[in-house]
Amino acid sequence: MATVAIVGASGYAGQETLDRVLTHPALELYALGSDSLAGEAAHALDPRLGRNGWSRIPRFITNGAALSCGADVTFVCLSHREAAELVPPSRGVVIDLSGAHRSAEPSVYPSWYGFEHPHPHGLELWSYGLPEVSPPSGRLIANPGCYATAALLALAPIADEIARDGVVVDAKSGMTGAGRSPAASSHAGVVLENVTPYRVGEHQHAPEIASLLGFPVTLVPHLLPVRRGLLATCFVRSLGVDLRAVLEDHYATSHVVTVLPEGVVPDLARVQQTDGAEIGVFEDRLTGGVIVICALDNLGKGAAGQAIQNVNLLYGLDETAGLRLAGVLV
Amino acid sequence: MATVAIVGASGYAGQETLDRVLTHPALELYALGSDSLAGEAAHALDPRLGRNGWSRIPRFITNGAALSCGADVTFVCLSHREAAELVPPSRGVVIDLSGAHRSAEPSVYPSWYGFEHPHPHGLELWSYGLPEVSPPSGRLIANPGCYATAALLALAPIADEIARDGVVVDAKSGMTGAGRSPAASSHAGVVLENVTPYRVGEHQHAPEIASLLGFPVTLVPHLLPVRRGLLATCFVRSLGVDLRAVLEDHYATSHVVTVLPEGVVPDLARVQQTDGAEIGVFEDRLTGGVIVICALDNLGKGAAGQAIQNVNLLYGLDETAGLRLAGVLV
Amino acid sequence: MATVAIVGASGYAGQETLDRVLTHPALELYALGSDSLAGEAAHALDPRLGRNGWSRIPRFITNGAALSCGADVTFVCLSHREAAELVPPSRGVVIDLSGAHRSAEPSVYPSWYGFEHPHPHGLELWSYGLPEVSPPSGRLIANPGCYATAALLALAPIADEIARDGVVVDAKSGMTGAGRSPAASSHAGVVLENVTPYRVGEHQHAPEIASLLGFPVTLVPHLLPVRRGLLATCFVRSLGVDLRAVLEDHYATSHVVTVLPEGVVPDLARVQQTDGAEIGVFEDRLTGGVIVICALDNLGKGAAGQAIQNVNLLYGLDETAGLRLAGVLV
Amino acid sequence: MATVAIVGASGYAGQETLDRVLTHPALELYALGSDSLAGEAAHALDPRLGRNGWSRIPRFITNGAALSCGADVTFVCLSHREAAELVPPSRGVVIDLSGAHRSAEPSVYPSWYGFEHPHPHGLELWSYGLPEVSPPSGRLIANPGCYATAALLALAPIADEIARDGVVVDAKSGMTGAGRSPAASSHAGVVLENVTPYRVGEHQHAPEIASLLGFPVTLVPHLLPVRRGLLATCFVRSLGVDLRAVLEDHYATSHVVTVLPEGVVPDLARVQQTDGAEIGVFEDRLTGGVIVICALDNLGKGAAGQAIQNVNLLYGLDETAGLRLAGVLV
Repeated sequence: MATVAIVGASGYAGQETLDRVLTHPALELYALGSDSLAGEAAHALDPRLGRNGWSRIPRFITNGAALSCGADVTFVCLSHREAAELVPPSRGVVIDLSGAHRSAEPSVYPSWYGFEHPHPHGLELWSYGLPEVSPPSGRLIANPGCYATAALLALAPIADEIARDGVVVDAKSGMTGAGRSPAASSHAGVVLENVTPYRVGEHQHAPEIASLLGFPVTLVPHLLPVRRGLLATCFVRSLGVDLRAVLEDHYATSHVVTVLPEGVVPDLARVQQTDGAEIGVFEDRLTGGVIVICALDNLGKGAAGQAIQNVNLLYGLDETAGLRLAGVLV
Repeated sequence: MATVAIVGASGYAGQETLDRVLTHPALELYALGSDSLAGEAAHALDPRLGRNGWSRIPRFITNGAALSCGADVTFVCLSHREAAELVPPSRGVVIDLSGAHRSAEPSVYPSWYGFEHPHPHGLELWSYGLPEVSPPSGRLIANPGCYATAALLALAPIADEIARDGVVVDAKSGMTGAGRSPAASSHAGVVLENVTPYRVGEHQHAPEIASLLGFPVTLVPHLLPVRRGLLATCFVRSLGVDLRAVLEDHYATSHVVTVLPEGVVPDLARVQQTDGAEIGVFEDRLTGGVIVICALDNLGKGAAGQAIQNVNLLYGLDETAGLRLAGVLV
Repeated sequence: MATVAIVGASGYAGQETLDRVLTHPALELYALGSDSLAGEAAHALDPRLGRNGWSRIPRFITNGAALSCGADVTFVCLSHREAAELVPPSRGVVIDLSGAHRSAEPSVYPSWYGFEHPHPHGLELWSYGLPEVSPPSGRLIANPGCYATAALLALAPIADEIARDGVVVDAKSGMTGAGRSPAASSHAGVVLENVTPYRVGEHQHAPEIASLLGFPVTLVPHLLPVRRGLLATCFVRSLGVDLRAVLEDHYATSHVVTVLPEGVVPDLARVQQTDGAEIGVFEDRLTGGVIVICALDNLGKGAAGQAIQNVNLLYGLDETAGLRLAGVLV
Repeated sequence: MATVAIVGASGYAGQETLDRVLTHPALELYALGSDSLAGEAAHALDPRLGRNGWSRIPRFITNGAALSCGADVTFVCLSHREAAELVPPSRGVVIDLSGAHRSAEPSVYPSWYGFEHPHPHGLELWSYGLPEVSPPSGRLIANPGCYATAALLALAPIADEIARDGVVVDAKSGMTGAGRSPAASSHAGVVLENVTPYRVGEHQHAPEIASLLGFPVTLVPHLLPVRRGLLATCFVRSLGVDLRAVLEDHYATSHVVTVLPEGVVPDLARVQQTDGAEIGVFEDRLTGGVIVICALDNLGKGAAGQAIQNVNLLYGLDETAGLRLAGVLV
């Protein structure tokens, strides 16, 4: 059993990571970090953590203490800025679920994240871990953004087969993607009966996607009146190849990503609360363009599930160990 | 006062048209048609119609009777197929809110609507009435589709200034856009916590948009867990002109369509239950592409409000008479 | 025309009050107060305020300046605590939409609102203004709470005809009832796919209701994943009288409150964005108990609409002047 | 391994039951019945059923064939009327998830369900299986209604300690509780931004609750704009005992039902997609009444999870085998 520390366990991504760790066959929870809950019992976060077999869960400690506790695997579930500040532990696997280490290029941070990176020289030590596209390597792993995951699952396998100009990603996300801190934009009075485009043409996942694809795309994210789940509708033009065949081939053996049969659209309901993703491929009757749609759960494959999947790969475990992939819930 | 008949008054579009007619300064309700409610009092549709000053509202009659009652203005609020079947009255203005007369080309109907048009030779008698783009003329008016309205308000004024290939319209609609008849796809158990792309690459509003623009676009509509409101996110590439300036100029004197200041995104909450539309213009940092976003209410500017606006123009009334345009509701 | 100042115009209740004032035939907006927006143009709150005929709207000033500007009517749209702090202007009508002056009994405030009232001796100068139950008098008016309005519209007319013990009010409110300030409990990630009972058995509207009825009730409010609208389901036992008949009689001439026909349930959709209320009356088959259900818009009849109605009554205007009562929107 | 047949597998309750059976350690799926899908592969219902290890799932057969296939356990997931028509198989355990066998008294059916029971003499062969209140016995089990489950979990343990008159159950349910068949009342255009009381004072779960408690209650159900989850807010008056203590004692060893600590309200988010239930207990400050609130998932503990739990008890398995009880999802 590898020991696990979760830094920032009281946010959405932290709580979801905790969920996966608690039932993982090869991971053992060792430290639960949260500056706001330090000293409290685990069930201060959620009464479910005080029930049944979970009475052995450790109390919350500070994020600093969790980071330096010597765990085999450390999940960092902090804001971009906070995660950028940290000095990673000198041993063990570190999975950063924030955007603080996704680009090796320091200039990306002031330009797209709004802050100078405090540790620019360490950036090249991190690898980008998107298992189906860019498998993790080394011990410091930058876990991809939720929009980037959906766009790259749809586009990376076909990147060489499509026109590189004019690629569009219109993405729609549930509200847990915005993090747990209250803000005017996440107030239910604004979100309900609404759909809100934001950071139009300037979201930080755009250069993340471009970097992996090798060419830029136009990304417009929208917030949905939905708790969890994300849909990326991607618009491309084929250079001649059958893009559905390429995608089916790429994901033929995956237990995480499914290419749906012709005519079936991806459905949030089927990926919510799971770590899987669904992809649908459609041709436009008028223009001949191709539409590739990817659905996933922003907190599952878009965050915590992918973090666990990265750990599984690094440890040589079954890729799906501890993941939520079963079930046919309504 | 012009007399009004509403054919199909018990559907969503019919009820909204009734709403506008009841408070219109120059229209007087004369006949209320509904085959399912024929013989019933108006308040069988909605108890509000039995209150206060509305006790004089006529009882429901059949759609056939409403159609032939000799009203000055007839609003047809039926399904595509039912509206295609009708023989329009020989006098008066007729506004068809369905898609049954939006194209003069008979082959569009079997190809995109799924039925042979029963009156193909009469199609050229109808004009397409989108006031800001293609003002109504004659007495038989095809009222535009809701997606087409949003896309054309965003794209028509800039059609000559953008690259004609690769234009993408990613549209999201509230559920009243799907009509009042129950269906598996409109069941709340499917709609809630979901966003559903449908008729991907083959929605019938795509050729409607293409016909007005003069070139094809890729349209993907999505259903939102929202009652009313529609957002069209349009992706274009400028040929060099400042597209914001073109749009601001085009709508400078409009009381219906507003181009928002830089940095302000259109908001469903500001257009819901109104007959107005909002347009936002944004540049993509990575690609230089331009994103034009239009928000409107699918039952307002996307249906009943536009129908009334068309009547106002044909009768030489104030363009905004009877429209819902005031207010700063939350 | 009476001049109007709105103190706290940038919150939900303030914005809704502004909406009604802008179209009121006898009120003229004179001062717009907001400490956070002071100095800004009105359209800083909402771009709609910069359009069409509304270019004459005054800029925001501080709440203090708005309070002391000498307006004929001052609407106070602040938090309970802030409103309690203020010294009302020495002339003109003042309508306080908060709970700071709803009880003449100073001990209510520390016990139910969590603060000592800073001006306990002035409390008896205020009257409670619920037009259908307790019409406003004097010039200082405490506008009722949204839950209290719904419960009292349902219960006050029958208070003498029901058993006084065991009255239950189970209330459900849209999220704008929680105010515009972001909080953990109003985060859409918590609200969506949820219904949340809160302040169970200890909400401050319970003594407000009890005070008007003359006996205590059990009130449990719940937050809904709904933007606006409120439903109060009230459970009573008749002492023998036909409660429906009493309610129908009480509201027979009202243009604001409607008792629905037998078998028709109140519907949020019919009262949202309006200043009206609907009441349904039902008998329980098993127990013979009676269920009285009231629906209204928490920002309309539950706040701004009622404030305007109170002003209308004090000024001897048509009770419904400036109210939103028309329409049959879906 | 016991073999399982699911009759009516394509509805909401059937699909959820299938979900639990697929991962149950002691149940093996043998027959999948659906008249509309007979002859189709399992993945015609849901593409997830065609993936990974689930390729061995049998094709759909007719409901009649599924009923008579000789399975050890038969789950009946049909409408009330359809379930009432069937002749149960002569061997094996049968769990009826409908209301067709919940009362041994034939007169209940015409009076509350709207039909004469076609097999009134067989009704006494069925037992009501609510594990925490009325454990299943025999081989023909009537699975409780979702509202009844929530109300009885809250009220049955304290039934002898409360005043028997004036008990109120105000219940709110997600839309999957209404079944998968489209209807006007389940159209998202009606459900969104709404909360709808229905069958006020005459819902068929009221006598079901009364029968188990031994006295009548007033039940008012409401439909929420929520996919799944149910909250029952119950209002009682204690005869003197500490009701919290009684409930804590009753559920002290349960792995399915949790009594929350003082001040913590039940939360749909914590029970959605699970087979557990949460109970909160509160005292009303004004009246001294007690409010007991129960949250569960209408398709989990309110339907399929309870059905599985009943089978576990009848077979002497671990009560929680195959149930969804783990996890701390947000």
